[in-house]
Amino acid sequence: MRALRLPAWKSEPELVEVPDPVPGPGQVVVKVGGAGACHSDLHLMRDFTGGLPWEPPFTLGHENAGWVHAVGAGVTGVEPGLPVAVYGPWGCGVCDRCRLGVENYCENPAGAPVPGGGGGLGLDGGMADLLLVPDARLLVPLPDGLDPVAAAPLTDAALTPYHAVRRSWAKLPPGSTAVVIGVGGLGHLAVQILKATTAARVIAVDTREQARASALRHGADQAVAPGERAAAEIREATGGRGADVVVDCVGAQETLALAGTVARMLGDVTIVGIAGGALPVTFGSPPYEVSVQSTYWGTRPELIEVLDLAARGLITAEVTTFPLERAVEAYHRLENGEISGRAVITPA
Amino acid sequence: MRALRLPAWKSEPELVEVPDPVPGPGQVVVKVGGAGACHSDLHLMRDFTGGLPWEPPFTLGHENAGWVHAVGAGVTGVEPGLPVAVYGPWGCGVCDRCRLGVENYCENPAGAPVPGGGGGLGLDGGMADLLLVPDARLLVPLPDGLDPVAAAPLTDAALTPYHAVRRSWAKLPPGSTAVVIGVGGLGHLAVQILKATTAARVIAVDTREQARASALRHGADQAVAPGERAAAEIREATGGRGADVVVDCVGAQETLALAGTVARMLGDVTIVGIAGGALPVTFGSPPYEVSVQSTYWGTRPELIEVLDLAARGLITAEVTTFPLERAVEAYHRLENGEISGRAVITPA
Amino acid sequence: MRALRLPAWKSEPELVEVPDPVPGPGQVVVKVGGAGACHSDLHLMRDFTGGLPWEPPFTLGHENAGWVHAVGAGVTGVEPGLPVAVYGPWGCGVCDRCRLGVENYCENPAGAPVPGGGGGLGLDGGMADLLLVPDARLLVPLPDGLDPVAAAPLTDAALTPYHAVRRSWAKLPPGSTAVVIGVGGLGHLAVQILKATTAARVIAVDTREQARASALRHGADQAVAPGERAAAEIREATGGRGADVVVDCVGAQETLALAGTVARMLGDVTIVGIAGGALPVTFGSPPYEVSVQSTYWGTRPELIEVLDLAARGLITAEVTTFPLERAVEAYHRLENGEISGRAVITPA
Amino acid sequence: MRALRLPAWKSEPELVEVPDPVPGPGQVVVKVGGAGACHSDLHLMRDFTGGLPWEPPFTLGHENAGWVHAVGAGVTGVEPGLPVAVYGPWGCGVCDRCRLGVENYCENPAGAPVPGGGGGLGLDGGMADLLLVPDARLLVPLPDGLDPVAAAPLTDAALTPYHAVRRSWAKLPPGSTAVVIGVGGLGHLAVQILKATTAARVIAVDTREQARASALRHGADQAVAPGERAAAEIREATGGRGADVVVDCVGAQETLALAGTVARMLGDVTIVGIAGGALPVTFGSPPYEVSVQSTYWGTRPELIEVLDLAARGLITAEVTTFPLERAVEAYHRLENGEISGRAVITPA
Repeated sequence: MRALRLPAWKSEPELVEVPDPVPGPGQVVVKVGGAGACHSDLHLMRDFTGGLPWEPPFTLGHENAGWVHAVGAGVTGVEPGLPVAVYGPWGCGVCDRCRLGVENYCENPAGAPVPGGGGGLGLDGGMADLLLVPDARLLVPLPDGLDPVAAAPLTDAALTPYHAVRRSWAKLPPGSTAVVIGVGGLGHLAVQILKATTAARVIAVDTREQARASALRHGADQAVAPGERAAAEIREATGGRGADVVVDCVGAQETLALAGTVARMLGDVTIVGIAGGALPVTFGSPPYEVSVQSTYWGTRPELIEVLDLAARGLITAEVTTFPLERAVEAYHRLENGEISGRAVITPA
Repeated sequence: MRALRLPAWKSEPELVEVPDPVPGPGQVVVKVGGAGACHSDLHLMRDFTGGLPWEPPFTLGHENAGWVHAVGAGVTGVEPGLPVAVYGPWGCGVCDRCRLGVENYCENPAGAPVPGGGGGLGLDGGMADLLLVPDARLLVPLPDGLDPVAAAPLTDAALTPYHAVRRSWAKLPPGSTAVVIGVGGLGHLAVQILKATTAARVIAVDTREQARASALRHGADQAVAPGERAAAEIREATGGRGADVVVDCVGAQETLALAGTVARMLGDVTIVGIAGGALPVTFGSPPYEVSVQSTYWGTRPELIEVLDLAARGLITAEVTTFPLERAVEAYHRLENGEISGRAVITPA
Repeated sequence: MRALRLPAWKSEPELVEVPDPVPGPGQVVVKVGGAGACHSDLHLMRDFTGGLPWEPPFTLGHENAGWVHAVGAGVTGVEPGLPVAVYGPWGCGVCDRCRLGVENYCENPAGAPVPGGGGGLGLDGGMADLLLVPDARLLVPLPDGLDPVAAAPLTDAALTPYHAVRRSWAKLPPGSTAVVIGVGGLGHLAVQILKATTAARVIAVDTREQARASALRHGADQAVAPGERAAAEIREATGGRGADVVVDCVGAQETLALAGTVARMLGDVTIVGIAGGALPVTFGSPPYEVSVQSTYWGTRPELIEVLDLAARGLITAEVTTFPLERAVEAYHRLENGEISGRAVITPA
Repeated sequence: MRALRLPAWKSEPELVEVPDPVPGPGQVVVKVGGAGACHSDLHLMRDFTGGLPWEPPFTLGHENAGWVHAVGAGVTGVEPGLPVAVYGPWGCGVCDRCRLGVENYCENPAGAPVPGGGGGLGLDGGMADLLLVPDARLLVPLPDGLDPVAAAPLTDAALTPYHAVRRSWAKLPPGSTAVVIGVGGLGHLAVQILKATTAARVIAVDTREQARASALRHGADQAVAPGERAAAEIREATGGRGADVVVDCVGAQETLALAGTVARMLGDVTIVGIAGGALPVTFGSPPYEVSVQSTYWGTRPELIEVLDLAARGLITAEVTTFPLERAVEAYHRLENGEISGRAVITPA
């Protein structure tokens, strides 16, 4: 079969022929319908030279969906032909967190197929005709009305902000305000998720006018440009109280500073973006009892909920498709900012 | 009546005669049974020269309990003779937070009797024969078996750690671990509160051997000295997973660094102490989804629960009593570290 | 001023002249903008002959909104001219439940202005030019964009189903199903509230085709007629699992039987309607861990949230207005089923 | 190996020789250290003639613990020699509920090894030298300090009341009251669980003086005999408010009537006992928003917590041991009320 492999750190991926994977006991091979091309893949090609618990070569693609192709001995609950999304963070499967489907926070990474990774992240991913999934528990059947191309990017670009929003639901009753900083791939889904699952007011913050317009189109009540006036605008919009929840999809020093400034006492500031900024928490700053934390990806039960929202049209990821032979081009266009929405590779 | 007043910043308090307070509509005068002497009062005498929204002169004492002495027009629900604790943070009483008894996080401080303060903090406090309380809602009847001397220090020294622990209950099921850093006035109550209200393992951290012994006496499962080995000891004690909840009653740079290091993914680090340290939160550090926040005092409904715990003997504050005429001496001994437990002034 | 008074049990209300109310300490007089005519008022006129802890004569109208007209001594936080909704269940104001704004479940009814009642329910209500409210805490300022006529019926017809839905939010994530039985005054708002605050699928059940059509218009995903096939249809629509939450706005024997049959393990069956039916709970029936309970009205903090939803257009009560002099006619038309939506009397 | 088998409905169990079980892929064979003899086994021998989704012959024993003896292909996370408890309700393992370890509420019983049963309930159980467990996920490693004999009865007699109590934790802060009706095998553990995990007052109700004495010994604050005065005594003990939570370990008509009478508004009445009584819920009775439900067994994550409590000495089940060859005698003595605490068969 064909596979888009990263041969080494600091290299270009290559489309090559490799043997078809064969499922061992408990394993499943998925025929790939869609594999999302993620910005973080560009980091793998360009920036890393080691320091991770895994390394190339491996096939790229960590946002995957398709159809069950073959199952190993002892697999129950899925059959060939079943359309499925692949839950991306592959943990040990047996620690207390994994037992609850919280494999993004696996506490025994040494017991995972690869520590802190998964398909497309140290192990062979979905940019290939077939994908070997190490356990059937990592599959989620697609609900009616959702095809693998639409589902693939949701497994990461929607699941990540969904997890960040869902953990804060209790702070988002009617009358509350959520601020989403950065309205890119994750942020425009964060806005939709907030509108679909809560009655909170949503304020989007982005430097780019077109991103702010996108936020309003996706349901944001207000869109604000960062800068000197941003904090004051948000305070005004909330009657002076501040934002009950801030989801920072950028995570830079200045966005976190804004988050800490506009958060309401007892609120949440959640760092989703990986720009590397820090928000210092000290007595009384951010305001009392604002909880500050970073989140990583989401849980398997949450992926089921995300797929339900998408199947019912309550959230949508914009998608541009590329056949597998044009995957390298897709990454180049992604790098040049020429992709609208998410690039999805469609091997099938 | 007699009152221990702070005449100005950077001054010694003085015991003087002042007119008896008279309750206006909705107000209550309390005959003071106990008024706790708090370390923060020493800051008021020694360190401040302004910068707060209020200033001397005022009568000291913000941890108060006694008996209703006289009630103003329109007061219902309390009658002269009723033993009561005084809820300390006096908010506006009408914002959404105050309506729930969360006056520690009043959102309209300009509407409070004094912004961000209360009796003994900008307004006349309990180190006097009588204390004017601006609204009956700020009183909580004492349950049977608890006298004002025992109750007074609980309104702050127990309510503050109680609030910090209670907000984290959901993270403290059997099998979890709580770490208390700093086993002084608040910390030794934090240990007791954890043991009384959860089945979590409790690990206490303190530089002083005698404080660690006190922690063990009050129910801690383990006591650890800070330093190079502390984080490793806590990791070992938790099977490598780390602490589900850390309550830092010190709040210094190094204690917060320890807190961030030993916290378990999805845990809580709560800053109760005011030593001025900061814990920077960035993507992945502290571990994913560790929530970091500072808390201030507690809520009125929580004070009811604290008093219930104390009345039933589930928590106890050690108390050393002083008559009002020896209050200045009490502060001096407090300053010199000569007080075991809490100093309580007993005007009655 | 004019007032529509119920002179005795089993009598017609009469529009008479009475003295203007004067606010005592802590009290507020409201100029009535809207007063909802509720079916339960018909019970007061027709069915009761005693048995309640209060009795006529009193002015009708327990769903009220208007403008602050005059305030008594010591009232803070509201000023003449302020548009307000009146929170309907008037409790003692000082028990633990009332302190949290949960006056619908006051635990000291003997301390309330009238036990288990309020304005229009034993005390003079809002079908008059002016309404005496016994404490400023019972007022909620109207948000921008909501006038007293629209707000009045929300204080009961929306607050009651809002409370029932809100308590079950945790059981209503994406993928879940809520069933609303009875799509009348409360039910059509229950449908809207579910759609505005959750991403649950909503199935409405009603015998009347026009009520089912109304449910679909207000956002229900499906509408089902009761009868032999109803339970099977709901099971099918939920993939066999059943409904996570059932809100029964009828409360008859047969509707409750349906609720118990279609509820999913771990779900909720909430009895809002007062038709007098009972659902027996025994080991394994309804399915394991289905919680069955009845709710009464809602809380003051919830009323704030309801008004926010309405001000932002997320929920709407259909209203037919009548001037005060036509209030008796309004009740007659209500009795004859000739009112579409809610009848609101507009004294101002 | 030896096995105590129930050959048919309405028959006595027989100790016979059977072939040793061999673990298939994913399966585990456990060397049995302890197998609890439960009252419900007597029902299997005496009362049933069908009507269940499974039938004899099978080996008895559904409360099991021991040591891993042999593992099938593909099993990870457990190794021979590991001391383990066996989670008793064996579900399909793949429905959403089973994925969270909530196999007691499996939604796909047709996909389970036997519908609605497990080892000792339709499949071969633990009253044998060896026990075949169909999946490693059903094992929980024993914590240090807990041996299989002590652990076995906890998997049911402690897990069942633990689940019932844990779901109500949020209603059991300091100042609240829990009532346990029936202080037998489950009830005396319910009392201990309440004391270990909450600061609620505990009132025990039992007809037998010796059971009430046992409740007090295990930490209950008060013990009450049922009858005319019981409801009044409980109301008095709670200052008139009633019980926040009632756990009925009997489940008879009269115990449920008492539960409904003494429950506080917003409280819980949980039916754990299988005596077949019913509590009708109607508008306003039991008091508003008392949630009534029945629970069945508990979840796998909860079993981990139960074992932690026991390993630390916070809960203890009284145990009387019998070798496997005296198992029939153990049941006879159980039937005659001659067993103090739990009878545990010890094949090893």
